[in-house]
Amino acid sequence: MDILESLRWRYATKKFDNKRILSQEKINTITEAFNLTATSYGLQPLKLVVIKDKALQKELTAHSWNQQQVANASHLLVFCIEKNVGEQYINEYFNNVKTTRNTPDEILDPFKQQLVSSFKNKSPEEIYNWATKQAYLAMGNILTICAIEEIDSCPMEGFIPEKYDEILCLNDYGLASVLVLPVGYRAKDDMFSEFKKVRRSIDDTIITI
Amino acid sequence: MDILESLRWRYATKKFDNKRILSQEKINTITEAFNLTATSYGLQPLKLVVIKDKALQKELTAHSWNQQQVANASHLLVFCIEKNVGEQYINEYFNNVKTTRNTPDEILDPFKQQLVSSFKNKSPEEIYNWATKQAYLAMGNILTICAIEEIDSCPMEGFIPEKYDEILCLNDYGLASVLVLPVGYRAKDDMFSEFKKVRRSIDDTIITI
Repeated sequence: MDILESLRWRYATKKFDNKRILSQEKINTITEAFNLTATSYGLQPLKLVVIKDKALQKELTAHSWNQQQVANASHLLVFCIEKNVGEQYINEYFNNVKTTRNTPDEILDPFKQQLVSSFKNKSPEEIYNWATKQAYLAMGNILTICAIEEIDSCPMEGFIPEKYDEILCLNDYGLASVLVLPVGYRAKDDMFSEFKKVRRSIDDTIITI
Repeated sequence: MDILESLRWRYATKKFDNKRILSQEKINTITEAFNLTATSYGLQPLKLVVIKDKALQKELTAHSWNQQQVANASHLLVFCIEKNVGEQYINEYFNNVKTTRNTPDEILDPFKQQLVSSFKNKSPEEIYNWATKQAYLAMGNILTICAIEEIDSCPMEGFIPEKYDEILCLNDYGLASVLVLPVGYRAKDDMFSEFKKVRRSIDDTIITI
C-alpha cells in the first residue's frame, strides 16, 4: 500500500479480534516511533504506557465510557504528559544534548537559561496545555505509523483521566494521562470497518496561495 | 528506508535549498494526507494554507522571529483551526455523513443533538483549545508523511499568529493560524542536518505493564 492508501485503510476500530496479539516487533516499532516524535524545543514531555494485561484493560474500560475496544485490543497505549517540566527537567535535557553531540557549555548555556526562565514564567496549566499538545502530535505520528504497519487502532479522548491516573499510579511517575489508543487487529465483524470514510472535500480544507 | 529510518532521517530543517521546489505530486500527497487526518468526533476543525509565493514567505518571516526557513522553503504550510464550530458547522458534518454513507436520520439525529448541545456548552476558548489539539495531531501525521516521502520540514510554534492571521486574511475565512511548517529540501550546507538526534532513552519514555 502507498501511504495514502494506508491512511484510507485505517479507521477508528471499535471491535478488535481479541485472539490476535501484536508481535513484540510491532510494539517495538510503535515505541521507537513514539520516542522519535518531534516535540517543542525537543523536550519530549511525554511517556507512553503500554498495557497488555487483560484484567487491567477490563478495569480501565469502566472508566472509558464502557467502550469495549479498550478491553478487547491486543494492547492499550496510554499517552501521558510529564507534569514537572522545570529547571531540573530542562537541565537533564541539556545534559543529554551535551553527551549526545559534545556541544560545549558556552553554546548551550544561553539557550538553557532562556528556556528555564521561560518555563518559570508559565503557570502549571500553561505547561499542562503545552505538553498536552505535544501528546496530540505524538498521537498523529503513531496513528500514521500504525496505518503503515497495518496495525488497527482507535484514538480516544473519551475516558476519565483522573481514574486512569489513579489506577496506573501515574502521579508516582509525575505523569498525567491525556490520550488513549487501543491497538491490535480489527475483528472480522467490526461493522465500522465497512463504513465509507467521511471527509470534507479537499477543496474545502486546503487553501492555496 | 523503513519507517523508523525515515523518522531518524528527518530533523527540523533550518536551511532549505531554495532552488529545489516540491513537485505538485508531493504537495498533493501532503494535502490529501492532511485531509485524511483523524480528528475528534471526525469534525475536522482544520484547514491548511499552502503558500509558494516567495514575497509572501519573506513578509511572514518577519513575523516568525526572522527564522529564514520560512523564506527559503519550497512551500510554507500554515495549519489553521476553524473558529466557528457551532450548530451550523456540526449540521454540515452530519449532512456529509448522511450523503457519504446513506445513514438514516433516525440513527444520526441523537448523536447530532448530543454534539450540538455539547459544543453549545463550550466557551470559545475551550473550542479553540480543542481545535488546536487537532491541529497538532494533523502536524504529527504530516511530519511522518513528509519523512516517508523524503520531504524536509521544520515544525514551528515560533511565529506571531495574529500577524499571520492579518496578512493571510484568515479571519475572513473564520480561521486562526496555530502552527507553521516550511517544507522542501534541505540545503547541502544546513549544519543541523549533521547533528546527532537527541532523544531520551527508550527505557525512560516507555512504561510496560
